Amino acid sequence: MRLSQLFSKTKKSSPQTEESINASLLIKGGFIQKTGAGIYTLLPLGFRVAKKIEYIIEEEMEKLGAQRILMPALTPKKNWKLTKRWDNFDTLFRLKGKEKKEYALNPTHEEVVVPLARSFIESYRDLPSYVYQIQTKFRDELRVKSGLLRTKEFLMKDLYSFHSSEKDLDNFYEKVKKSYAKIFKKLGLEKKTYLTLAKGGTFSRYSHEFQVVSDEGEDTIYICDKCHVAVNKELIRTQNKCWKCGKILKKEKKAIEIANTFKLKDKFSRDFNLTFLDKHGKRNFVLMGCYGIGISRLIGTLVETLHDDKGIIWPEIISPFKLHLVALGNDRNVKEVTKKLYNILQKSKIEVLYDDRNESSPGEKLADADLIGVPYRIVISKKTILRKKIEMKKRNSNKVKFITERELLNFLK
Amino acid sequence: MRLSQLFSKTKKSSPQTEESINASLLIKGGFIQKTGAGIYTLLPLGFRVAKKIEYIIEEEMEKLGAQRILMPALTPKKNWKLTKRWDNFDTLFRLKGKEKKEYALNPTHEEVVVPLARSFIESYRDLPSYVYQIQTKFRDELRVKSGLLRTKEFLMKDLYSFHSSEKDLDNFYEKVKKSYAKIFKKLGLEKKTYLTLAKGGTFSRYSHEFQVVSDEGEDTIYICDKCHVAVNKELIRTQNKCWKCGKILKKEKKAIEIANTFKLKDKFSRDFNLTFLDKHGKRNFVLMGCYGIGISRLIGTLVETLHDDKGIIWPEIISPFKLHLVALGNDRNVKEVTKKLYNILQKSKIEVLYDDRNESSPGEKLADADLIGVPYRIVISKKTILRKKIEMKKRNSNKVKFITERELLNFLK
Repeated sequence: MRLSQLFSKTKKSSPQTEESINASLLIKGGFIQKTGAGIYTLLPLGFRVAKKIEYIIEEEMEKLGAQRILMPALTPKKNWKLTKRWDNFDTLFRLKGKEKKEYALNPTHEEVVVPLARSFIESYRDLPSYVYQIQTKFRDELRVKSGLLRTKEFLMKDLYSFHSSEKDLDNFYEKVKKSYAKIFKKLGLEKKTYLTLAKGGTFSRYSHEFQVVSDEGEDTIYICDKCHVAVNKELIRTQNKCWKCGKILKKEKKAIEIANTFKLKDKFSRDFNLTFLDKHGKRNFVLMGCYGIGISRLIGTLVETLHDDKGIIWPEIISPFKLHLVALGNDRNVKEVTKKLYNILQKSKIEVLYDDRNESSPGEKLADADLIGVPYRIVISKKTILRKKIEMKKRNSNKVKFITERELLNFLK
Repeated sequence: MRLSQLFSKTKKSSPQTEESINASLLIKGGFIQKTGAGIYTLLPLGFRVAKKIEYIIEEEMEKLGAQRILMPALTPKKNWKLTKRWDNFDTLFRLKGKEKKEYALNPTHEEVVVPLARSFIESYRDLPSYVYQIQTKFRDELRVKSGLLRTKEFLMKDLYSFHSSEKDLDNFYEKVKKSYAKIFKKLGLEKKTYLTLAKGGTFSRYSHEFQVVSDEGEDTIYICDKCHVAVNKELIRTQNKCWKCGKILKKEKKAIEIANTFKLKDKFSRDFNLTFLDKHGKRNFVLMGCYGIGISRLIGTLVETLHDDKGIIWPEIISPFKLHLVALGNDRNVKEVTKKLYNILQKSKIEVLYDDRNESSPGEKLADADLIGVPYRIVISKKTILRKKIEMKKRNSNKVKFITERELLNFLK
């Protein structure tokens, strides 16, 4: 992609209405744009990041044997009345259409997936069963000053599991936790992410959250350095010990919840009468689990965690591009050599962002490369051409290397 | 995918509340499920079809140089007030959140994309520019008796183009029409699709629609057999001649609008003051085009067009699977031979739906294969094993072929 053709442009100054680092850097870099308070558009760069996260999650969901579906955002009031959440779900968006029909804009999908499962689950032979979706959720949040960390509309992956026994639910629940840990490891968040014991709602004693330590976090967790796990502050009165080694937890940290796992057990199955016939012909309630990853929030969290004073530092696996290619100065020869390299890289299917802008100064180009945060910066200038080399720099390092074109292409293979 | 593991199940009888063929077949086959009137869930089979359509569209959009973004569904009232569509857009869903904030649930995205473009378009050098998204739209439709042809929530691809001159807009507009024709050709809809002249709204004299001839259609068009184009009935009083050959149009047909192209010109640019500086330093309004393809509706249209009394007949390019593999009967040897073939196909990355169900009769299995509509059916039975062959049948043919495993694998390459 040529930077001169990119729909978005970088901005020199931080947006005045944004207080969080993630929104500020993502807007300056041209990843997102604000459409309203707590409502953002993903621009081409941001969309590429979201797609890459989607692939990683999709891969793990497939491994779990989960099947992808797409449920609606709009759902009749009666489904939400049945679970008693129409009146009690604090951030629920409610709306009235023609003929006085009322709908919820789903902030979560138990009210859709449980009646759905009811059409297909009849006997123990139909269990276990797992479905997931990557879809837009809505929440009428008031505090929306944290960029992508808290928004009124966001991308989420939600997985629902259906089981015939508590043991089977427990086993799958553990599998999902491992799968989530793998996803966050791939994203480079392993060290900062704590598997955190939290309240289980009305259905279970405990749930688990994946909390990323960050000053921007709204949650408070108590961490165990040794076991790399934590307890959410909401539980600390009754559970002040590490649930792995038993040590008393004292270290308080601010953290961002990027994922959670819940054992719903028969809570929603009872509401919608979702039952199955067991091997002995007896009717039982289906047991359920639900497991979410906030994709928009994950993007915000990655930026909060991986940046410096110059800009974002994307992990390679989800960076919108692998290389940021800069033609330094407007010398014709420099332009031509860079263009040639760009064409070679394009042909080799390397994802490269090529800064071909004529009107930008060398300083602006290098600053934009740091701001956008692609992992490898390649610079072509009069100097590099004289040396018959290419300048390469990792975004998260200060060292500049001079390599040949062949060395670059070998490295990229 | 093993049919015994599939989240959905086929249904023996048509749903009583559905009057259209597309909804009836899609629900019976386990592609979609109704969540409310005009609100559907895409089940695993339906999601696979939608994804394949998405790939085809994405490929064509890339060729046009359009960049993919994701705009929000929720948009502040003030954007819709500015274009005067808050009060005038008949099917607009409006909602009120906390602190009396009002929002529209976007049925189309000019109210988002134009202010967005305003942040990035400054001079003629930034033009032309094209962005698109594949996203969920909302319309408060009353008549929702046509399955996926008319729903309250649906997937749509919408593309927006920005130009510095009318000539440039005209050129791109023609390119998009060609690109759309290519998409519908790939989907096997070429013969039934008519490029149709329609009203241009307040902005332009004409727009164009891609209309698929079908009895289930809500539109009426007048077609020219020779030129394979049409005029929408809404225009026929003033435009009763073929706009290609000049022949008077008399042949009236019902049709489904699957796509449209609009020259918006400066209508929305004026509303949001979207301008650019031309080469002479003069400020002008940006000229715009918008181009939509209804993805959910396209799925419904494909089923209306491509089915027989036994079920759906998917075009290979978007079928959820390439092969439907049936183990006929519960003979152990038959099961083993089929399983072996399934594993070979899986390893060769062939998309295969394997009917491994124990409780279904041969008749049910063959009926389900016809209902689901995968293009090639492979049957393994005692008889085929004796003959050391595999039975293969195309969904849209009555001829059964007996081939060897090697012949099958060669054919699939």
